[in-house]
Amino acid sequence: MTFHSMWAELLPVGRDSASGGYRRFAWTGADAECRAWFEEQAEARGLVHEVDRNGNQWAWLGDPAEGDAVVTGSHLDSVPDGGAFDGPLGVVSAFAALDELRRRNVRFAKPLGIVNFGDEEGARFGLACVGSRLAAGQLTREQAHRLTDGDGVTLPRAMEAAGYDPDAIGPDPERLGRIGAFVELHVEQGRALDIGGDAVGVASAIWPHGRWRFDFRGEANHAGTTRLADRRDPMLPYAETVLAARREAELAGAVATFGKIAVEPNGVNAIPSLVRGWLDSRAADQASLDTVLGGIQKAARECAEAHGVDLEVVRESFTPVVEFDHALRDELARILGRDTDLTVPVLGTGAGHDAGILSGSIPTAMLFVRNPTGVSHSPAEYAAEDDCLAGVAALADVLEGLVCR
Amino acid sequence: MTFHSMWAELLPVGRDSASGGYRRFAWTGADAECRAWFEEQAEARGLVHEVDRNGNQWAWLGDPAEGDAVVTGSHLDSVPDGGAFDGPLGVVSAFAALDELRRRNVRFAKPLGIVNFGDEEGARFGLACVGSRLAAGQLTREQAHRLTDGDGVTLPRAMEAAGYDPDAIGPDPERLGRIGAFVELHVEQGRALDIGGDAVGVASAIWPHGRWRFDFRGEANHAGTTRLADRRDPMLPYAETVLAARREAELAGAVATFGKIAVEPNGVNAIPSLVRGWLDSRAADQASLDTVLGGIQKAARECAEAHGVDLEVVRESFTPVVEFDHALRDELARILGRDTDLTVPVLGTGAGHDAGILSGSIPTAMLFVRNPTGVSHSPAEYAAEDDCLAGVAALADVLEGLVCR
Repeated sequence: MTFHSMWAELLPVGRDSASGGYRRFAWTGADAECRAWFEEQAEARGLVHEVDRNGNQWAWLGDPAEGDAVVTGSHLDSVPDGGAFDGPLGVVSAFAALDELRRRNVRFAKPLGIVNFGDEEGARFGLACVGSRLAAGQLTREQAHRLTDGDGVTLPRAMEAAGYDPDAIGPDPERLGRIGAFVELHVEQGRALDIGGDAVGVASAIWPHGRWRFDFRGEANHAGTTRLADRRDPMLPYAETVLAARREAELAGAVATFGKIAVEPNGVNAIPSLVRGWLDSRAADQASLDTVLGGIQKAARECAEAHGVDLEVVRESFTPVVEFDHALRDELARILGRDTDLTVPVLGTGAGHDAGILSGSIPTAMLFVRNPTGVSHSPAEYAAEDDCLAGVAALADVLEGLVCR
Repeated sequence: MTFHSMWAELLPVGRDSASGGYRRFAWTGADAECRAWFEEQAEARGLVHEVDRNGNQWAWLGDPAEGDAVVTGSHLDSVPDGGAFDGPLGVVSAFAALDELRRRNVRFAKPLGIVNFGDEEGARFGLACVGSRLAAGQLTREQAHRLTDGDGVTLPRAMEAAGYDPDAIGPDPERLGRIGAFVELHVEQGRALDIGGDAVGVASAIWPHGRWRFDFRGEANHAGTTRLADRRDPMLPYAETVLAARREAELAGAVATFGKIAVEPNGVNAIPSLVRGWLDSRAADQASLDTVLGGIQKAARECAEAHGVDLEVVRESFTPVVEFDHALRDELARILGRDTDLTVPVLGTGAGHDAGILSGSIPTAMLFVRNPTGVSHSPAEYAAEDDCLAGVAALADVLEGLVCR
């Protein structure tokens, strides 16, 4: 099967006809269809298919028990109304790259694996990278068993309903210990490659990132009769803080976003008693992120005070910087730059990935494919077919270099 | 019964023990308790109690069929978690003022009525002043029959369940035609009296007021990976518009409030595709309101354009200025200023009232009682008992002047 025909087969699975986006959520029917497709691809190539204790799918050429395996792949699930590329591009490219290596008559000196990690997006249970987190011991069985979806269905019930054993989940150090290198190919979720005019790049690091909840508490009152001077309106410092976040992020070359808000009582003729805004911020390094957050909090506090509004800032989550393995990254750059005079672009990313989770356990690296819209997690997410094929060729080069070394 | 004992009797009805606020919504059990209390008060005073076709309650001294009646009163329902004074102060003061007139041995030359208008706050069905609107022909039976509460119960079903006939509702010109003057006493919903050091004031007008929906449409995208320069983030022009509303209102001596917001997709790691904000704005006159709205819309459009965001502004409702009857207002001021050298303060208000609805059909006036917190529609709404008694005395003076003229 060509890249094109594999892509065409996956395209209708879990697609919502109204939005044009994907709804491939963990342990649903659409997820099962994606998994059946993966198994067919493995069997069509004579690979050994297996599902690990955490529901991650593997397709092996050679015996992984030999160790020092080279693994590539990504995930097939999606965010709500997500695009076609985030995840699937890495899995389809993995099978296509293996086909290319066979065309090249490469001698496989090491086992080669292709993986589909379960529940990467966390769209259903609210936690991202569940499959890789469990395997790497970054999420315990007890924690996972407490995860619940929007309809009140727990993760163990959902796994059971899909035919999997939720009591078997947990750390998988033996399996990860057999892997010498993991390379994940992914559509870029920004425009760095497009701006530089490159089809493919190598990841340097995943930016440190955090989420903070800003609770502005004022006083509910009548919007028609309360003099401006008598108000304690929390919407005003919220608005100032939204603008401060943009300013601070611009100064630091970082990103900062207020994308979620909850207002009480949220009535047209009521001054709010509470405006709760969630900040998502990421930067290239910890010092920059600290600077951005410090600037935003300072502006928020000053404004809240000026309006007689109380402010509480709660850090809801935080992930420190993930530096991908330098030796592996340099080897990828060397392999990709071998036949040209060009330097392969090396870029950081603001998004989390299974590769980031696994980087604490095994050497991992990532390849990015150009996305001219820069849009992701939306039906507008896009990569041209020529760029996808350039990604497959680059992945094949990298795998050849790694399995033959 | 004294003012104090009437007040104490009403105080626990429909009060939420958690918030300390009132939940006296139309046609509920709490509403029925308030109505039973009103009927008891009427009977205890030998007044003729009746409920009109629209569910408004009346208590008559003398025969209203004689015409040129003087009526006072207000409403007993509340907003969600409202205060104790907005509405009930006017009804309790009406009975207390009648008691005072009897103590003075006033000779009643005209019929005197006390009224409790139904569903003034619109807390349940979303439309304010339903009882007075129906009576005045400003709301048709068909429109009223389409009103539905948050649980999907229609107004006619709710009326039926409370023992009233929803098919009887409609305009009541004959009843209104018998009224020569309506005076509503109300707690002030701002601090103008407090600032001036007065216990009681007379209303000049209800400010023109409107509600506008601002739809800022941008592009949903990944908050972690989308460069600032590639964003079309509608939260940014929304924030600028919130601040512009405050600035413009300050310049014009008006009020402008963004108290309600809806965001899509409202995810922590998603740049919003849509930020919808509702503006409530009111000013002393139409020209000032036009200036405020023009300034806000200009700022909103400029900011939206700068961020590549589309903006649509929809006027959802509008009420022009309501000037209370000048002759009646001047008579009230003359009566209240008779025994002192002081001028009674005459003030505008940003809030709607049954008196505003009726002013199109009959001469109406309002008295305000000092509210030192300026807060209303909240448990913090307050008037000192001395000021309430000053309000009763002023209302008695006014009624004496009107029934004897």
